[in-house]
Amino acid sequence: MSRFVYADNAATTPVLPEVADVMRECFLQDGMYGNPSSLYKKGQEANKALNDARAKIAGVLNCKPTEIFFTSCGSESDNWAIKGAARANVKKGKHLITTKIEHHAVLYTMEALEKEGFEVTYLDVDSDGLVSAEQVREAIRPDTTLVAIMYANNEIGTIEPIKEIAAVCREKKVICFTDAVQAVGNVKIDLADLGVDMLSFSGHKIHAPKGIGALYIKTGTRVHNFLDGGGQERGRRGGTENVAFALALAKALEIADGRLDELDAVKAKRDRLITELKKIPRSILNGSEEKRLPGNVNFSFECIEGESLLLLLDSMGICASTGSACSSRSLEPSHVLLAIGLPVEHAHGSLRLSITHETTDEDIDYILECVPKVVSRLRAMSPLWNE
Amino acid sequence: MSRFVYADNAATTPVLPEVADVMRECFLQDGMYGNPSSLYKKGQEANKALNDARAKIAGVLNCKPTEIFFTSCGSESDNWAIKGAARANVKKGKHLITTKIEHHAVLYTMEALEKEGFEVTYLDVDSDGLVSAEQVREAIRPDTTLVAIMYANNEIGTIEPIKEIAAVCREKKVICFTDAVQAVGNVKIDLADLGVDMLSFSGHKIHAPKGIGALYIKTGTRVHNFLDGGGQERGRRGGTENVAFALALAKALEIADGRLDELDAVKAKRDRLITELKKIPRSILNGSEEKRLPGNVNFSFECIEGESLLLLLDSMGICASTGSACSSRSLEPSHVLLAIGLPVEHAHGSLRLSITHETTDEDIDYILECVPKVVSRLRAMSPLWNE
Repeated sequence: MSRFVYADNAATTPVLPEVADVMRECFLQDGMYGNPSSLYKKGQEANKALNDARAKIAGVLNCKPTEIFFTSCGSESDNWAIKGAARANVKKGKHLITTKIEHHAVLYTMEALEKEGFEVTYLDVDSDGLVSAEQVREAIRPDTTLVAIMYANNEIGTIEPIKEIAAVCREKKVICFTDAVQAVGNVKIDLADLGVDMLSFSGHKIHAPKGIGALYIKTGTRVHNFLDGGGQERGRRGGTENVAFALALAKALEIADGRLDELDAVKAKRDRLITELKKIPRSILNGSEEKRLPGNVNFSFECIEGESLLLLLDSMGICASTGSACSSRSLEPSHVLLAIGLPVEHAHGSLRLSITHETTDEDIDYILECVPKVVSRLRAMSPLWNE
Repeated sequence: MSRFVYADNAATTPVLPEVADVMRECFLQDGMYGNPSSLYKKGQEANKALNDARAKIAGVLNCKPTEIFFTSCGSESDNWAIKGAARANVKKGKHLITTKIEHHAVLYTMEALEKEGFEVTYLDVDSDGLVSAEQVREAIRPDTTLVAIMYANNEIGTIEPIKEIAAVCREKKVICFTDAVQAVGNVKIDLADLGVDMLSFSGHKIHAPKGIGALYIKTGTRVHNFLDGGGQERGRRGGTENVAFALALAKALEIADGRLDELDAVKAKRDRLITELKKIPRSILNGSEEKRLPGNVNFSFECIEGESLLLLLDSMGICASTGSACSSRSLEPSHVLLAIGLPVEHAHGSLRLSITHETTDEDIDYILECVPKVVSRLRAMSPLWNE
C-alpha cells in the first residue's frame, strides 16, 4: 500500500493555504510591494501592513506591539537575544546560564561567547529532560547576566517550568530568555503571565514559511542590536523588512491560537502512538509523559540505527526524524538523549514523530502498521539483537 | 491626469511574475516544503532545489557554488562579512578601512565594532563620490585586516573602482569586501576577474522578494560565523533555509543577467532625465556622470525640502526618494551628499529617481512633466527663493 504521512512537523510544516493567500498579494505587481521605510503611499501601505501584523502577534501573545521584532528565523532570534544581552551587560558580569538540552542555535551561540571570554553554566536535566527553578537559583551568581532555557525541547517535547524560572530570574535581577520555537502555537503563551524578558519563535514550525521569526523583547530589557543597519524595527534590526512573511507569520499564529482548544485531539493521537509503540519489545519513550508537547513522540529502540529506520520509513511514505529537528544529517548521537542519560547506542536508535492537527487517525494507523515492521526487520539484520 | 510611475527601484523592486511562480510551488501543500536538513526524500528534494539555486547564482557570478551563502538580506550579509572578518583576524590587528558614503548596514556595523575596540578609517570621497585605490593603499597599515568599500552607491549611483582596490588589498594581504547590493543585476560582475574576497547582495533590489540576500566568501577567507546554529549552509549560517526565496533569488539574478545587454536602453532613459532636469534653474546632478549605475538619477534643487518634493510627487502618482534608499523616514541630511561636499541645505533638497527595464518612455515623459512643476511650486512658497 502506498500512503504519504508527514510526521516531522517539529522540523518544519507545510504552509497553510490561507497563509499562502496572505503572501500572494505582497508578491503581485499591483500589490503592496513598497519599501516600508519609504515616505510615499505605497511604502506606507507596506509599513501599515507590517505594523498590523505586529499588533496581531502582540495580541495573541499578550504583549505590546513595540515589544515584537521580526527576524529571519528562530536561530537569528536566539543569537540576538543571547549575544545581545550578554554583550550589553558585561559591566555587571560575564556569566551565563543555560541547559545541556538546548537547540544548537543556543548551544553554539554560547560556545561562541565562551571564545569571547564569557563563562557558561550548562545545567543538567533529569531523565525526563526537566530542569528546575531551584537549579537555576543555585546557579545564579553575582556576575550572572542571562538565563537562557528553552520552553519546550525540540527532540523529546519536554516542557520546562519557564514561569517558575522567570520568577527566580526576576527576584535575582537576571535577564530571562526562552527559546519558544517549539512551543508557540502548540501551548498557550501569555507573556504578561509568563514573566520572561525575551522569547523567540519561528514561522515555519506553525505553517508559515521558512525565513521568518520574531523576538519578544520586554520594554526595558538591556540588549544590544545584533544586525546593524537602517532604522528598521525601530532602529533595532537593520534590513528591509520581509513584509510578506511577517504577514504570513501573524496569520499562521492567529490560526494556531484559534485551534489551541483542538489540541486535546492531537494529544489523544500522540498518546495512542505512545501506548502502541511501547508494546514493541525493548523500546523506550524519551521525555516526560506529563509535561510534553501535544504532538511529540520520541522513542529509542535497542539495536536499531536511527538512520536506517528513517530511510525504511521514508520508503513507505512516512517522514520522521532521528536526532535533532534541524540537523538530522549530522549523525552524531543526540546531545539531548545523552543528557537525559541514554547510553550512546540507544541515542543512536531514536525516532521522533511529530504530529499536528492535520494528522488523521488513518495516518496514525499507518504509522503503527509500519514502525513495528521496520523495527523487526532491522533487528533481524542486526548482529547485536537476540530475542 | 492620473498615472502611476514607480521610480524608486533602488529602494525596492516589485517581484517579477516569473519569480513569483518559482516560489508558489514551495508554498503549496504538495510542493517541496521539506526541511532541507531532513534525510527523507521530501527534505532531500528541498535540499537539491536549494543547491541548484546556489549553483545558478555561482554560474552567473563566476564563482564556486560552495562560495555562495544565503542570508536573510543584504544587511545581514554586510554584518556577517565585516563583523566576521574583523573578529576572526584580531591577532593580526584591529584596524578596518571603509568610506564615508557606505550604506548604514556598513557604517553602523563599523560603529558597533569601534565600541568593541576596533579602529576604523573612513576614507573621504571626491565630489563625484569616488574613492581611489591609491587612497586605500595609503590607508593600509600593518594592523589593517579588512577593507570594506561599496561597489556602487545607493544614493548617487557612483560606481567605485573595486577591481583596482581589490588588487591593492591582495598585494597588501588585506581582506577586501564589497557591498554590491546596488550593483548586482545592474552591472556585469565576474568574481574571478574582480578579485574581491567577499561580496554581498540582496534579492529585493532585483525583483526577488524582500527577505533574501547572499554573501560570497572566497575559499580560504578567514571569517567567523555570524549566525550560530544548526549545520545549515555548510555549518556557516544557522537557521532553516528559506528555500522558496533562495530559488526566487536565483531566478531573479538569472533574469537580470540575461538582460544586462538591454541596459543601454535604461541608460538612455536615465540620460534623458538627467539632461532635462539639468534645465531646472539651480539644480545640481549628484554623483558621477560617467561612472554611474544605469538606473540612477540624483539631483539637488536649491531652496527645496526633499520631503515636500516627495509628498507632492506621490500625490501625482510618482514614487521616488530623498536621502538614502532605506531610511527615507529619517530626515537627517544624507551623509552621502554631505561627503561629496554639498552644503546641508542642498543635501536636504535632493531627489533620487531610480529606474529599471520596466520604466517606459511615457513614464519618463510624465516624470519630466511633474518634477519641474513641483519644484516651481515649492520654490514659489519658499521665503529663501528669489529668481
